[in-house]
Order: sequence, then structure tokens, then C-alpha cells
Amino acid sequence: MSLEGVHRYIDEHRSEALDILRDLVARPSISAQDKGVKECAAHLAALLGRFGIAAEVVPTPTQPIVYGEIIRDPGGYTLLCYGHYDVQPPEPLDLWQTPPFEPTIRDGRLFGRGAGDNKGQLLAHVLAARAWLEAADGPPINLKFVFEGEEESGSPSLGAFVREHRARLAADLVYISDGGLHPSGAPVISLGNRGILGITLVAQGADRDNHSGNKGGVAPNPVLILAHLLATIVDPSGRVLIDGFYDDVRPIGPTEQALLATLDYDPVAFGATMGLPTLPMDGPTYWKRIMLEPYFNVNGFVSGYTGPGSKTIIPARAECRIDIRLVADQTTRDILHKLRRHVATVDPRVQVLERGFGTMEASRTAPDHPAVRVVAQAIRAVRGTAPYINPASGGSLPNVVWPRDLGADHIGVPYANADENNHGPNENLSLERFYDGIHVSAQVFQALADAAAAGILPRQRARGGASR
Amino acid sequence: MSLEGVHRYIDEHRSEALDILRDLVARPSISAQDKGVKECAAHLAALLGRFGIAAEVVPTPTQPIVYGEIIRDPGGYTLLCYGHYDVQPPEPLDLWQTPPFEPTIRDGRLFGRGAGDNKGQLLAHVLAARAWLEAADGPPINLKFVFEGEEESGSPSLGAFVREHRARLAADLVYISDGGLHPSGAPVISLGNRGILGITLVAQGADRDNHSGNKGGVAPNPVLILAHLLATIVDPSGRVLIDGFYDDVRPIGPTEQALLATLDYDPVAFGATMGLPTLPMDGPTYWKRIMLEPYFNVNGFVSGYTGPGSKTIIPARAECRIDIRLVADQTTRDILHKLRRHVATVDPRVQVLERGFGTMEASRTAPDHPAVRVVAQAIRAVRGTAPYINPASGGSLPNVVWPRDLGADHIGVPYANADENNHGPNENLSLERFYDGIHVSAQVFQALADAAAAGILPRQRARGGASR
Repeated sequence: MSLEGVHRYIDEHRSEALDILRDLVARPSISAQDKGVKECAAHLAALLGRFGIAAEVVPTPTQPIVYGEIIRDPGGYTLLCYGHYDVQPPEPLDLWQTPPFEPTIRDGRLFGRGAGDNKGQLLAHVLAARAWLEAADGPPINLKFVFEGEEESGSPSLGAFVREHRARLAADLVYISDGGLHPSGAPVISLGNRGILGITLVAQGADRDNHSGNKGGVAPNPVLILAHLLATIVDPSGRVLIDGFYDDVRPIGPTEQALLATLDYDPVAFGATMGLPTLPMDGPTYWKRIMLEPYFNVNGFVSGYTGPGSKTIIPARAECRIDIRLVADQTTRDILHKLRRHVATVDPRVQVLERGFGTMEASRTAPDHPAVRVVAQAIRAVRGTAPYINPASGGSLPNVVWPRDLGADHIGVPYANADENNHGPNENLSLERFYDGIHVSAQVFQALADAAAAGILPRQRARGGASR
Repeated sequence: MSLEGVHRYIDEHRSEALDILRDLVARPSISAQDKGVKECAAHLAALLGRFGIAAEVVPTPTQPIVYGEIIRDPGGYTLLCYGHYDVQPPEPLDLWQTPPFEPTIRDGRLFGRGAGDNKGQLLAHVLAARAWLEAADGPPINLKFVFEGEEESGSPSLGAFVREHRARLAADLVYISDGGLHPSGAPVISLGNRGILGITLVAQGADRDNHSGNKGGVAPNPVLILAHLLATIVDPSGRVLIDGFYDDVRPIGPTEQALLATLDYDPVAFGATMGLPTLPMDGPTYWKRIMLEPYFNVNGFVSGYTGPGSKTIIPARAECRIDIRLVADQTTRDILHKLRRHVATVDPRVQVLERGFGTMEASRTAPDHPAVRVVAQAIRAVRGTAPYINPASGGSLPNVVWPRDLGADHIGVPYANADENNHGPNENLSLERFYDGIHVSAQVFQALADAAAAGILPRQRARGGASR
């Protein structure tokens, strides 16, 4: 009865929800440029307060976190909703049809920087909670909200924040809506992400460029040094040859293996989005490689002269930029150590430089976690179709903080349309998908409450103690 | 008696020689920019004519060649002096102490673009011939002059010109003064040059950059494609692994091997000029690698994003620019064929693009050619010290046209100071080295005449027929 009322409330308050979203998107909060982030945090905390959600702005050494909570029963089931209110820089501005911070509705979408990533999605949780507060006597579970202000800058303070406030943040599950639905519009659950380790390999030959005629044969060539090194690091099939690299890769379980076969796959269509005529692999292999296997990538390489004409030099220096995508339970620290050891053995002339920014750990929730089925059923109830369940996504997100620093499992349920253009010009959020998201959150709260009451959901061991 | 008079004439006409050089350097003749080349050719031909040398400007499809000759005895020994009157572009202009085409004397040097490379050096031959014409009854051998107007642009028409005028150009030896003396000022003879084959390897993965998280594991990485290919082309020691690559390398003869040991070598000083603390090899090895062995060089490599920050992409494309330095009797055509075959076998995804510009063949005159000793003795008579004899130089020059297209051996005797700064700002020619050059040319004419009379010099087989 009360759930019906909540959904009705959401339907009846669509236009107000849209106004709230527009107002939020209109506030620039660009962490990379430190523009308007703190102002946006204050606005968001005030908004939560206006809805009856106890909220505050918690400073960190970098950008503040907006924290809110609705505690119905201190010992009851608790869901933590994570999102981020900072946005990517909007540049290049001339590619936007309408200005990025003047949210505009066209074709059933709200255009504006941050509409989908992540303001519209975090707001869905807040508006669902509000509907529960207004149309019933509050949500059926405890809710906690952690809205970060620098996800687009690598979440530098999130882990420390969670560790410091571990007792207060204690939760049974962390729920994250970020990214897009399936291109068909079908819902998706994502159970984790790959990690990322960014490094740069630098080979220095002589301390200056040399004439390749006058010195060719006696001066070392840094490109060839790196080419030979790379050939010892990864084989032509992509398999990494570093000693112990695969040691900690979490085995793919039977449920994960089964899920891979359920995922949508079309080798021609998928190849086309990537820029290849087709893909020389089957669906489970394709998804396994992206989701559950590590990958050694070179994202940039530069040496010598590469402008018009040519310059017959032996370059002094070559630089190779790498990102290694890791999977649970590999760690960036261990892999960096093993890579350094490999390079020191093969060619100590090559320097391994760590790129601090953007390093993230892999994280993966087991697909047979009981909450997965519960959330999937809630999604189906709202959307009328079962979600694809991704054992992980190929990209990297700061999800590891939840199991590592809070001791809680996490589940990802994106709400945005697949073509939200996050990070690009003309970012947008489909209004229907926005309203769907509010309904899904509201439904998920109820479904988790029911399942918790039935005793089928794991509860976080009370590591935080005091708060539970 | 007449040789002494010739040397005296040269000494007495230093100031006039310098005026002639200044006037020639003041005339821009920049082949790369097609600036003033034809005007300079006309001036040079007129200058030869004024000295009593039959001269003309011979058009080619590109820049004209100035041809001159003094035929004393149609069946007699004939020396062809090759040089080039075009110059490198003078930019960047702001690095010149005085304007490049306003020749200026400072510290006993003439500063100006082309002073050393190659106007002062070609003029030395002309002024030596003039001294023989004025102070004696003409040079003791037949002289032919070929002064090219586009050496700095890769000599695109020289080969065809020589083939077309083969009968008229027929000569027993070709004499080239270009480049610099030993840094100590000691004289040098160079018996050849390495060839050069410029190619670009291009690996195309997908037709666009892909997100390394979302596609890492399923999209091909073009940098790794090229790294693996390069590792099959050359081993870590620099040895080329292409099938048949070394087949045509001319064996190093005992005279060449002996010469390598006579060349100046200091591993610390030589390393320092290159930008290395020292060199891990002995002198004969050092010189052998530069002069008599081929070398596979990567002079540029670019892929993906290499600006500030980082971009986690799988690049669509990687480009590797290569110059292969070849030695006699390898040919660029054969090596290109073998490289293409290798690439097609190892990884047909990689394209091999030929860079037409700058391709040159290797060429090497045997060090026991009787003219080498004759010329060396002539140099010693003038300079008071024996020349270093380089079996070849490491760089690439269009010398192959002489044996290939004319059937004549060639010998290089540079006249410029080692720090002439050719190709750079503040190019200059030491006045003493300029006057030395005139004396050396005059002395060489006599020495060759004497040796030819003694029957110890090989004569060109009369391939040209008609002219001999």
C-alpha cells in the first residue's frame, strides 16, 4: 500500500523533480578546475535538509563530501547510496548546442554538464527517499547518502573519509548509480570494476639527439630499448609475461561464467562501435576479457621527430605511457612491484615512473550475493524487464573503498541513457530514465526491507560497533 | 717549377680569392625554398668563363647544374670535381650573429650561409685551376667541374644528368670536397658513405581511439603491434634479423681493417660529444660500426596521447619512422623488398610506407685504390701532415652516381674546418683552411698528372666511347 503511494507521489511530482535537477545542473561544480564545488556542496546539503534528511557538508583535505542519513532503526538494514556532485570540465565549449551550465530540454532530454554524470542519478535516490518521507512514514530501511565532490578527479579523499567515519557510515550494502543503461534501454546491474595502474616507461639513450648517419651503430636507440622491453612484458596475444602477474587474479566462478553467456553480443555491431569490421571472438570471451581479465595497455608513445618531413636522428629519449587494467584480487601496489622487478631485470636503463593520479583498485561483488537477485527483481518490477547482470565493468571506479574501508558489498545500478555523453559535449539525461531511476530507487528500498525481514540478506559485521 | 709558381700565385691572390668567395656567399641559393638558385648558377658559370674555363648552365627537370671543363688532352687523365652551389635554408635567422647572406669576417673566418657548405670548397678547385691557367700553361690534367644546385634537397636530378651526359663527363676519378677536417685540423680523406633508406611503419588497430577500460582486451593495440614487429626486425644488440639483410654487405678488406685502427679514438671524449659518459667499445669497433656496417634506426615514434596529464585510450594508430643506413653493396631497393617481405610474414596488419625523399645508395672506393696514396701524399706535401683515411663516412651522400652512372671511382677530401656549422646558424669557413684547400687542389692536379704519367693510376674504361 505505502509503496504504491510512493510511486504515485513520484509520478505526481515529476515536474518538481525536473526543476530540482535543472537547478542542480545549473551550478558548475568542476573539481578539476576547483570551480563552484564547495558552493554546490552547500546547496545539495541544504536540499537534503529541506526534504527532511539530516545532512551536512563534511570537509576533507580536498573537496567536501555531502553526507545525509535517515535512520529509522539503528539496528536495522542500512543502504548507503553513493554518488558524486562534481562534474567533468565542459570544454570544448563550442561543441555544445546550448551552454553546459544552462540546462535545456530538447527531445525529452535535459542537456547540461553533469545531468547524467552524476547529478541526475544521485538525485534519483534523494527524490525516492523524499517520496517515502512524504507519501509514507519514511523509507522502510535506513538510508545513508555519501555524495562526493571529486570523483572526476580520482576520488583522492574518499578512502580516508570512509575509514575515518567508518562507524557512522556503517551499512549493509552500498548502492551506486553511475554510467549508462544498455544501449537498448534495458536495465543493467554492475557488480564491480577493473582497477587501473598508470605508469610511464622512459628510456634514455644519449643525453641528446644524435645524427643517425654519424652515430648510427654506436649510440643506443631508446625506441628499440622500449620495443624490446615491451615484447618481454606482453606477448602478441596480449598475455602479460611479468612473473607472478596473474597470481592473484580471482578465479571466475560458475555464476560469473554463466552470466557472461547471458550478456548481449553482436560481433558486427560491437565491432562497428569500436571501429573494427567484426570481432574475432564469441560473446563470453568478449565480456570475460573486458570484465574479468587484466589488460596491459599502451595509451601513448613518443620519441624523436614526428612532424612533417623527416629528421634523421637517434632520439635521446623515448616515453611510453601505460595503463594496466587489473581485476580482483590483484592490487596496484603488488603489480607495480612486479613490473619494477621485471624491468630492473630485463633492462635497468629503463625508468618506471608512477602516475599517481587515476590509480584505482579493482573490486567485485560476488554475483550470487543475495542482494543481486533482490535488486534485480525490484528493477524488473519497475521497468518490466530483467536487467543484464555484468560481473564487472571494464572501466575503473573507486568502488574498492566499500569492501576495503567500510566492509560493505556494493552493487551498481546505472540510471542514465547509454548515450548520455558523459565527459563529452552535449551531456544529457533522458527525462524518462530520470523518472525511472527515482522509481527504481524507491522500489529497491522496499525490496531490500522485505528481504532483510525475511533474513535472506547478509548483514555487515558490526565493525563500526558504536553506530549499530 | 710550374707547381711552385702556381702555389706562389695562390699566395699572392688570397685577397682576390676571398673577394670572389664573399661575392658568391652573398648570393642566396636555397634549393629547399627555390630562392636564387638559377641566378647563382648563372653567376657561377660566368665566373668560370671569366677564368678561361669553358662553362655552361645545364638545365635539369629541377635545378640547373653548372658544368665547366678544361680539356688539355682529349685522351689524357681526367679529374672531375664535384660540388654544390645551393645552400641550406638559413633559418632560424635570429641565431645568426650577422645576416647569413651578408658575409662577414670575424676571428679569421668568413661567416655566411654556404661559406663552408659548399661554396668555399667548390671554389677552391676553381681557383686552383685558375692559378694553373694564370701561373703556368694550364692544369697538368684535364679538369671537369660538376656543380649541382640541389644537393641540399637530395640531388633528385644528378643521377639522370650523369647518365645523360656520360660521354661528356667521362673521367678517371671524381674528387669531392665537402664536410669538415678532423677537429684537430688534421686533413682527412673519405672513401665513401653509407646509404640511407627512409621508411615509415604504420600499425592501424581500430579506426578510432577506444576507451582502454571499456575495450581493453578486445581492441588491438597498435603500439604493441609495432613493438612486437620491431623486436623481430632487430635484436637487442642492434643486429638486423630480416632474412638476407646482410647478404650483400661488402666484406671488410684487410686494408680497411688496418685503416680502422689508425683512426683517432677516445672513448671518453667521443662519448661526451654524443652525450654518453663513455663508449663501451674499442676504436676499430667504433669506426667499423659507423663506417662499414649497416644500422637500423628509429628516428621517430608517435601514438596516442602524449601531452600533459593522461588519456586512457587504446590508440587507433601508431607510426614508427625509420632510417636504415646501408653499406656497399646493399641496395635500398633490395633491402626495401626484404623488409616488406619480413613485415608481410610477421604481421600483415602493418603498412610499410616508403619515404622517397632522402633515399641514397651506399658507395665505397677501395682504400688500396692507387689514387688514395697519390692524393694523400699531395695533401701531406701542402699541409705537412698525413691525412686520416676514412674507409667511409657514416652519413649519406649522393656519391653512388659516380661508380654507378659514370663508371668512375670517387675520393672525398674535405677542406672546411670541423666547426664550420654547416646546416646551422653562423656557418663559417676558416680563411686559412680555404687557402689551404686551393693549394691542396692545385697540388693534387700535379700529383695525379705525375702518377698517371708513371702509369700507376687506373684509367676509366672508355664506356663513354666518343669523348675519349
